[in-house]
Amino acid sequence: MSSLSREPNTVFIGRKPPMSYVLAVITLFSAGNTEVTLKARGQAITTAVDAAEITRRRFMKDANIGKITIGTEEIKQEEGGTRNVSTIEITLTTEAKPKEEAKATQKAQAPATEAAKEIA
Amino acid sequence: MSSLSREPNTVFIGRKPPMSYVLAVITLFSAGNTEVTLKARGQAITTAVDAAEITRRRFMKDANIGKITIGTEEIKQEEGGTRNVSTIEITLTTEAKPKEEAKATQKAQAPATEAAKEIA
Repeated sequence: MSSLSREPNTVFIGRKPPMSYVLAVITLFSAGNTEVTLKARGQAITTAVDAAEITRRRFMKDANIGKITIGTEEIKQEEGGTRNVSTIEITLTTEAKPKEEAKATQKAQAPATEAAKEIA
Repeated sequence: MSSLSREPNTVFIGRKPPMSYVLAVITLFSAGNTEVTLKARGQAITTAVDAAEITRRRFMKDANIGKITIGTEEIKQEEGGTRNVSTIEITLTTEAKPKEEAKATQKAQAPATEAAKEIA
């Protein structure tokens, strides 16, 4: 849960492999969120893009890339002075898929061929 | 010139420090382009974001981040099989600044104090 914190619907990307964050993103979508934001800075920016792409291509094919913003943060250094580090925010969105699935389940009592079409 | 190639108005980001690519971007804008795209994949994604941010914040304060897209490319491996690598494209745009500068140059024949203001 360390990567799900402070801000709701947000996954903070660190030094773990992309799959750790993919799981965090899927967990947030499964909890009913229709929008999840990945935030990263510095070298973790690449991991954020990897996690977004793996989520969308391998696990949640109905998810879309929403807004992508880049920015700069000033980090105070221990030895004094500041250092600039780049940041990225990637928002993934889905249509409210859980409700759709609920509907499909209700229709399971309809003729089998029709229900099969719904799933296909 | 190695990073300015094939596609027009495009800077391909590799393993050099961000400043190399900042210079390439500024060169393209100085040549009269109002739109320059940075393309990167894998670990170079962070460098692309750095280059875009440094350009916009330090050198061309009238430049804006346009479209940002992310994607995945399949890379064929020598030992057979494919590996997926994430990609990013960041488009920077300006209002047609070169014309403004041309105007300022024409005004150089105006009183010196006024010309100084234009440059400042």
